[in-house]
Formats: sequence, C-alpha cells, structure tokens
Amino acid sequence: MRAVDIIQNKRDGQPLSAEEIHFFIENYTKGDLPDYQAAALLMAIYWRGMDRQETVTLTQAMAHSGKMMDLSGVIDYAVDKHSSGGVGDKTTLVVLPLVASMGVPVAKMSGRGLGFSGGTLDKLESIAGYNVNLTDEQFLDLAGKNGIVLSGQTGELAPADGKIYALRDVTATVPSKPLIASSIMSKKLASGANGMVLDVKWGNGAFMNTLEDARELAEIMVKIGADDGRDVIALLSDMNQPLGQAVGNAIEVVEAIDTLNGDGPADFRAHCLEVARYMVQLAGQGEKWTDANAVHQQLEAHLDNGQAMDKFRLMVAAQGGDLKMIDDPSLLPSAKIREDILATESGYAEQVIALEVAYAANALGAGREKKGDPVDHAVGVMVYVNVGDQISAGDRLFTIHANSEAQLAEAKAYLSQAVKVASSPVEPLPLFYGVIDSRTL
Amino acid sequence: MRAVDIIQNKRDGQPLSAEEIHFFIENYTKGDLPDYQAAALLMAIYWRGMDRQETVTLTQAMAHSGKMMDLSGVIDYAVDKHSSGGVGDKTTLVVLPLVASMGVPVAKMSGRGLGFSGGTLDKLESIAGYNVNLTDEQFLDLAGKNGIVLSGQTGELAPADGKIYALRDVTATVPSKPLIASSIMSKKLASGANGMVLDVKWGNGAFMNTLEDARELAEIMVKIGADDGRDVIALLSDMNQPLGQAVGNAIEVVEAIDTLNGDGPADFRAHCLEVARYMVQLAGQGEKWTDANAVHQQLEAHLDNGQAMDKFRLMVAAQGGDLKMIDDPSLLPSAKIREDILATESGYAEQVIALEVAYAANALGAGREKKGDPVDHAVGVMVYVNVGDQISAGDRLFTIHANSEAQLAEAKAYLSQAVKVASSPVEPLPLFYGVIDSRTL
Repeated sequence: MRAVDIIQNKRDGQPLSAEEIHFFIENYTKGDLPDYQAAALLMAIYWRGMDRQETVTLTQAMAHSGKMMDLSGVIDYAVDKHSSGGVGDKTTLVVLPLVASMGVPVAKMSGRGLGFSGGTLDKLESIAGYNVNLTDEQFLDLAGKNGIVLSGQTGELAPADGKIYALRDVTATVPSKPLIASSIMSKKLASGANGMVLDVKWGNGAFMNTLEDARELAEIMVKIGADDGRDVIALLSDMNQPLGQAVGNAIEVVEAIDTLNGDGPADFRAHCLEVARYMVQLAGQGEKWTDANAVHQQLEAHLDNGQAMDKFRLMVAAQGGDLKMIDDPSLLPSAKIREDILATESGYAEQVIALEVAYAANALGAGREKKGDPVDHAVGVMVYVNVGDQISAGDRLFTIHANSEAQLAEAKAYLSQAVKVASSPVEPLPLFYGVIDSRTL
Repeated sequence: MRAVDIIQNKRDGQPLSAEEIHFFIENYTKGDLPDYQAAALLMAIYWRGMDRQETVTLTQAMAHSGKMMDLSGVIDYAVDKHSSGGVGDKTTLVVLPLVASMGVPVAKMSGRGLGFSGGTLDKLESIAGYNVNLTDEQFLDLAGKNGIVLSGQTGELAPADGKIYALRDVTATVPSKPLIASSIMSKKLASGANGMVLDVKWGNGAFMNTLEDARELAEIMVKIGADDGRDVIALLSDMNQPLGQAVGNAIEVVEAIDTLNGDGPADFRAHCLEVARYMVQLAGQGEKWTDANAVHQQLEAHLDNGQAMDKFRLMVAAQGGDLKMIDDPSLLPSAKIREDILATESGYAEQVIALEVAYAANALGAGREKKGDPVDHAVGVMVYVNVGDQISAGDRLFTIHANSEAQLAEAKAYLSQAVKVASSPVEPLPLFYGVIDSRTL
C-alpha cells in the first residue's frame, strides 16, 4: 500500500477502505508518512467528504492511536459531555457537580481554549491551587472516591488527532465536517465514556454559523458514537448571543458559583439544567430517571439547596483548589479597571452579537492565539442584555474588566458594534433548536 | 500575506492574485514555505483549476525562479521543440539536425526520461563519449559556431518546477492540466526560445489518454506562450501505437541514423518532417519559407542528400561522441539476446498498443523508475506492425532485444497483449489530429 494511491483514490471521489484509513493514521502517527502527503489527503477529504463508514473508521483509528482510557473499574456507566465551544460557555463548571449530586459519577477531561477566551482548564486555574494535571491513578482514584473529577488529559489521548489538527490549522482544512467530527469524537471514544451529551452550538459566536451546518455536524458525531456502541445525545443550541452574562475566565467562575448557589443568569441556569438532565437520564439507561420533568425538578432542587455546590466544593478541595475563593468569589483574580458601557438609544435588543463580545474579551487578554500563550484570568466582559430585552438610553449594557487602558479601548470599539437596537419588540432567542439521539436514530 | 490564506482562497474557488502566486513560488523555492502547505495548495489547484491569467502568472513565476537563458547573443530567433512524451519518440535526434541543415540555428536542452523508456539524453549517451553536460559557455559557443547543440540543462532552469514536480509526484497532483502546462512551459520560457513547436501526443502510450485532453492541454500551453510574447505551435499527434519501429535507447539512435540517411520507417520520417517544417517556418517568421510545400520538399531533400546527417555528425563530433558509431551503427551497444515474436493469427492489425510495448521495454530495463537509476542502453523492442497492416500467422511482429532471460520472458508477456487482430480491413491511424497556432489564436 502506498500513500500516494490513497490520496489518489480520495482525490477521485472513492471512499477509503478501512485498510487505507488505518495505514494513513498508523503511519502518520508514527512519523512514517510525511506531513505533505497527509496535507494533500486532508485537502482531498475536504473536497470529497467522507461517508459514514469512512468517518467512523477514521475516528476509531484516531482514538486507538494512543491510550484508551478504561473507567469501568470505578464507574459502571461513564457519562461525559462536550461543547463545540462558544462565548461565555462555563457550562461544565455547573453541570459536572450538578450531575454528580444526583449520584451519577462524572470523570471528565477538559481542554484549554484556542481563540477568543480560555477553555475550561483556564477557567479552573483562576482558582488558586486547583490542579488540572492529574495522573491516571489520581484521576481514577477521585472518580471512584468522590464521584467527581475534572482535569486535563492524564496522558495523550488520540495523539493522531493532535497531529492532524495542527496540520489542518495551517493547510486550510479545518472546516471539514467529517474531520471536525472525527477530531472531537476520537478523544471522546478514547476517554472511555459509555454515553455523552454533545452541546453543538450554531451562530456568529460558534464554529458552525448556520443551524443546518450544526445539525449536519451533530448527526455525523451521533452516528460515529452509535456505530462505536456509545450512547450519544446531541443538543443543537444557540450561540448567536453569549451564554449567561460573564465572558472571561475568573468572572465565568464567579457566575458558575452563583449558579451553583441557586442564582446566576436565567438563560445559563436553564441551559445547564437541560444538559444535566440528558446526562442523568443517559446514566439511568431507562431504568431510573425515566420522567424528564421529575429529573429536571430534582436538578433544580440541587441547585437551590446547595447539594450541587457541595459536589463542586468537594471537587475543588480534592484537586487542591482554595475553597476560600469558592466561598468568597471576590478573592478570585480581579481586574484593575472596570468600566460600564451604556446604551445610547432606546428600543428592543435585536442582536447581541456573540462574536463582537468574543473579540472584546480576546482584546482584553482573556484568550490565546497559540498553544502555550498565557491567558489573563482576571479580564473579561459582563453582558447585561439579551435579545428581546427592552432597553432605554443610559441602561448598562456591559461592564468591561480590563488590566490596561489600551486593551480597554480596543474592547470598547468591539462592544460598540455588539448590540443592534430595533424600534419594535423582538422575540427572545431560543436556547435549543433540537435534539438528536443515537438510540432513536 | 499568509500561506494558509492563499490555500483557503484557492480551496474556495477564488482565482489567485499575482501577489499570491509570487508569494507561493518565491517562498517555496527558498524553502520558507513548507512542503505540507504547498501540497495542500496543489491539491486545491487540482480540484479548482486555474484560469488563463493564473496559469500564465504561475508559469512566469516558475520560469523566473532561476536563471533565464539568453540566446540572443548567438541566435537571432531561437526555435525550440518539446514533446509531451511517447513510446519510440526519438524525434529530436532527427529534427534538430534537419532544421539546422536549413541554416536555422538550434540550441536545445533535453531531459532524461522517467518511466517506460529513456529520454533524449539517455538515447544520446548510447553514443560513446557524447557529452550532455555542457557549461553555459560551451553551449552558447557551439550554438554560435555550429548552429546546433543538444545537451542537458546547463544550469538549473526553473528550479521551482523541479521542486513542485517532485511534490506532485508523491501527492497525487500530477494530472492537473494547468500544473502540467506550467511545468513544461516554465522550462521553455527559461530556456530562451523565441518560438517553439509543441508535439502534444494523445493515446494509450501518452500522458493524455484522449484527444480532448491533449487539445485542452495544448491550448493552455499555447496561451501561456502567447501571453509571454513567444510564438507557439502545438501539433496534436498520435500515441496509440509506437512512433517508428524502435523502442529503447541505442536502437532508437540506429533508427534516427537510418532516417537521417534517407531511410527509416515512413511514419517516423513523416512525423519528423512535419515538426521540422513548423520549426523552420516559425524561424522564417513569414519572410522566408512561406511556402509549406517548398519547405517540406527541401527538408526531404536534406534527409535524402546527407545534409541533415552532416549536421548530426557535426553535433556528435563537437560534443565528443564517437563518429565511428554513427557511421557504423552496429558498433552501438547491442543486447545479448534477440528474439522474434511472430503473429499467431491472420487478419488486419486493429490495435498496436503503445502502452504494452512500453511496459515490455521497461521490463527489459530501457527505462528507469526513479531519478538517478541507470538505464540499459542496449535493450528494447523493434515493432514491425502498424495499425491497418494486413498480417498473416507467422509474420514477424516484434524483435525483442534483451540482456536476460527473465526480462525477455516478462517482455514477451506484455507483447502477447500488444496486437489486436481484426478479420476485416482497418483504417491506418493518422499521424496528426490538429494544429494550434499562437499567432492565429
């Protein structure tokens, strides 16, 4: 088998065989197949696409390119979540303890952000002492003992994905749905989850700019999971406006703590309850928690009565984080400058453009451009307006948390573009647009 | 300007700007743009194609990536030829001295073959002592003094082409017409020709398998030349059956010598006369040699009266070749084994498949698989049948010139597939199918 023939087959629109896909992944991971052949193949895949069988085989080959995590010794049915990424998305910080509070063990590995704001690990590191670098043993021990653990990868999961993603980034082959789906799902398969909830966002602040694109990507991912024997539920959710109010790192942790204390923005609370409900119902597997309303009510109770917060405190303490910061969020990193942005006209909020808020947060230093860059945990943007809100000139729309005047000025320029005001009433945006379930596919 | 944006533009079907093309070629030639980005761009070009302006700009950028040969000091109007490659194509060996015999100076750089049989340089090296590695000074000196010189490249012409071709070869991006055309024409532009005749072949033994593909490729090349201010004539010629009788290296030199002595196979002689006539008429530029028939007759006379052979001998002697071998071709390298292949049935030759003959020659060792491999000058196949010929069982169809029994057996297997016999009369194949002229485009 020769790499050039594999490239030629895909170039000519033929589906790749399992042998061809395994040859590519194994040799590329080992370094025996050069970057330039991988690049040509990726562009041919971008052009020709991949059918269901190819995509599943590719994902499995990528998953098996490294260690396959085994949680079965500590968790009967491991349930995971994944978000395709959005502006103000601190969902994991609330959903994980909330699900754990139901007696459903959760052992999750998260990533760092690339782009507009930090990832879940960056947000967690706002908490002094929180250790995201657990070993396999520590990870499994906490999962078994506490029923909750949230860390970075304990080893290199799906190393083929890391290599391929880096190459796609510099060869204009990122926005290919089979490649996006295989990248996400290879890590999920390798992480040992039996079931997972995928939060697939669409909108100007998401990777997928249309609902159709998000639905197509979600369907591919659900099919990959199904064909690999996993239970997968994909929620199609909104990312046209930011999720919740806080966009940054420490200020998102504050919002997560508020929500775990029974407060927090209504849209974010509702979003977390829905993701958590699906995770709990997946873990119940039709035997427990069959009544969605009952689960929802119990989850609400756990936010309001402190049981979810108890699990969060348990997790933070177990991973070395400073509980004083959780109990008094004013101790979390905070920015030197705070400046409110007020509405200049009255009417109804027609758009609150997530992408402009993201640019502002990025300008403030909340995100990173390339792997290894530091992030500023303290900075960010608080967003006080949702689509559909009636606003009056002089109302506070945003508060900018900045550490320099230059960054503040840049953020203000982006935010001046972020809210579009209409003269007549506007419908609020929905949180969700649909559900795709591998078990009813 | 970033390479990834250039790739993305082409991926999305946008024509590349001159700035983008120059950025790519200059940085790739210098080694500042990595192979993997070039590979992704080449696959995107394969997919999306290139318009006339892009193709011309790419070709000019590749031509200017190295030395631009200047023949104006020794030749008023330099005329060149190029063949897209075929089975038994020893045309240059006859056409060059034939054109020179008309007082039209010819200074040509040829290449080595990759694939089924050797290139012009390999054939020339069948002649003991013939030096294909001339310096610039030697090349220009012989062009001026003798009006004929035939050598390898005196320096690296169009180094970008060499680099891109090597990458295309391993990334399944060879058969892209704009890339093929720019590869050929970049070297022609860099070699300093004012006018050129392109012999674009189609058929099972050619790179282009259909007349339509050959016509399309020829038109692109003629347009490149026209837009760069060169005169270009493309002849669409046949490569379904081998050209002439000899397919190999030394045996092709023997056939060229025969033709220069007024003999040789009729089809090959006719082919050479046509190519030479266009070259002579191009060099005359409408002032001399306006009468095609008169030129043709004069060229025939020069084959029959020894004037073309005189120029060949002058060239061989000037480049250190052994004239005894020219005067007595039996002194050229010859194979240990000769075996005739006879017809097993009677009828009319419906196909004489050039590709099968090529496989046979290759099996005998006449060609090379990769750059730097040696070729066996002595071996090859003599082909005694043309499409349309009436044949009887027992007629000699081929003579195999082999240096080993194993290679002989392999060649026989290919040749047993090479001739298809029909029971009713079959039309001969034409030599040419059309002409495309930059001056009347």
